[in-house]
Amino acid sequence: MNRRRRIYEGKAKILYEGPEPGTLIQHFKDDATAFNNQKHEVIDGKGVLNNRISEYIFTNLNNLGIPTHFVRRLNMREQLIREVDVIPIELVVRNVAAGSLTKRLGVEEGTQLPRSIIEFYYKNDELGDPLVSEEHITAFGWATPQELDDMMAMGIRINDFLSGLFMGVGIRLVDFKIELGRLIEGDMMRIVLADEISPDSCRLWDTKTNDKMDKDRFRQNMGGMVEAYQEVARRLGILIENDRPAGSGPVLVK
Amino acid sequence: MNRRRRIYEGKAKILYEGPEPGTLIQHFKDDATAFNNQKHEVIDGKGVLNNRISEYIFTNLNNLGIPTHFVRRLNMREQLIREVDVIPIELVVRNVAAGSLTKRLGVEEGTQLPRSIIEFYYKNDELGDPLVSEEHITAFGWATPQELDDMMAMGIRINDFLSGLFMGVGIRLVDFKIELGRLIEGDMMRIVLADEISPDSCRLWDTKTNDKMDKDRFRQNMGGMVEAYQEVARRLGILIENDRPAGSGPVLVK
Ligand SMILES: Nc1ncnc2c1ncn2[C@@H]1O[C@H](COP(=O)(O)OP(=O)(O)O)[C@@H](O)[C@H]1O
Ligand SMILES: Nc1ncnc2c1ncn2[C@@H]1O[C@H](COP(=O)(O)OP(=O)(O)O)[C@@H](O)[C@H]1O
Ligand SMILES: [Mg+2]
Ligand SMILES: [Mg+2]
Repeated sequence: MNRRRRIYEGKAKILYEGPEPGTLIQHFKDDATAFNNQKHEVIDGKGVLNNRISEYIFTNLNNLGIPTHFVRRLNMREQLIREVDVIPIELVVRNVAAGSLTKRLGVEEGTQLPRSIIEFYYKNDELGDPLVSEEHITAFGWATPQELDDMMAMGIRINDFLSGLFMGVGIRLVDFKIELGRLIEGDMMRIVLADEISPDSCRLWDTKTNDKMDKDRFRQNMGGMVEAYQEVARRLGILIENDRPAGSGPVLVK
Repeated sequence: MNRRRRIYEGKAKILYEGPEPGTLIQHFKDDATAFNNQKHEVIDGKGVLNNRISEYIFTNLNNLGIPTHFVRRLNMREQLIREVDVIPIELVVRNVAAGSLTKRLGVEEGTQLPRSIIEFYYKNDELGDPLVSEEHITAFGWATPQELDDMMAMGIRINDFLSGLFMGVGIRLVDFKIELGRLIEGDMMRIVLADEISPDSCRLWDTKTNDKMDKDRFRQNMGGMVEAYQEVARRLGILIENDRPAGSGPVLVK
């Protein structure tokens, strides 16, 4: 395991060469970053939780016929994924006003949006992931109009599924971010969901108390981040063993 | 003339009640503002020039079958227009990278864009006219999808005409901003071009020297703003009398 090749180290994950061509291993770190890396901390246990929550969501999306890069989980922090050509656009789906939208458009946090809104951000740390529109994306060739249509359709389907899933466990899906990539299969190319879906990439509010159960706890220095992520996993019925050296025996969290 | 009702005073223009219901008088002031009103100056003669240049362009667009609010010029600083319900979206058409696009997307000023790009800004001084996308516009009901299609089609046609017009007089049309509004005619509602098109709302570079002949001279403290606007008018073949009290006799500028 130690001699495998590291392909990319990002802010929250590492990608290693996978066991077969066209595969990668996605490793979830405990690092939390915000405001384009200006704020950085190591949050013990976050990687394990995101690995499990993302596995749970991607498996269910695969089952629903929404294609993803996810193959299977390998261990506490790692999953086997299919390598894709990541489209440099972060797609954000919003149901409720929060975060940058409240500041940019003067809408109060918590306002139910008239309908779900899809936003695109150009994935470029140097430029601070600027908001872009379909016009920029197709003009600069970041995605074709057909790809963009597919991406938006997938965003809507994923929003439908996640909204229902979280609603069922007493959580309001405020918004979430996804990344998509091109996967070549024979002579076909299709768009699949890549990266992760976790409390790092979603805004999740407790339906009753409006408590934040997501990365905003970190962004806003609220504390209790791991506890919130644990609670999300618990409500989804995900059993998590502690992240211990092999042999020390699993500890079940329910 | 002194007792007519002032409907709205903006940064560069004043709207007065018109002679008939459904009409307004658009008065061009000499005020120049930039950076959302943080920079402000009175530039002697600018209003006269913009009135004439905008008249010239709107008349030609009307003749081409692109509907506008323009009825006729009344005097040196005023034109008769049809009152419309202004859509709170500023539509920007870009052919060459300049201004905010260069900063937001890291593209060097002067780069020819892969194709013309249409951008939308939410017309709201308090929020600093934020960039928005089709999603925001239709979700918040600022315009319907059908209206947005019409607006984009008009933006493209106007860009085609203006690009040709300016090319013919040795000027590169880098980008421009337009405002559109709803006009009710009988039981029909249609989108028409409103506001103005002038060196205040376009970026115009001399084809040979790349000299700026537009409001960037003011934004960037380059001086020579009125002279540049005069040169634009001159190249378009617009004869301008000086802005003097009636009776002092016209002075022709060629
Ligand atoms: N299936 C995949 N194939 C290739 N790259 C992927 C895949 N899934 C995710 N990635 C990329 O791997 C990186 C994951 O690490 P992360 O720490 O999130 O990086 P970043 O700091 O760029 O957000 C991201 O850049 C993401 O776009
Ligand atoms: N035909 C029209 N009917 C009603 N309002 C118009 C029409 N044409 C332009 N307007 C509005 O009149 C104002 C023109 O004045 P301006 O100084 O440009 O104002 P602003 O500071 O809002 O940009 C603008 O707000 C513009 O939207
Ligand atoms: Mg990432
Ligand atoms: Mg204006």
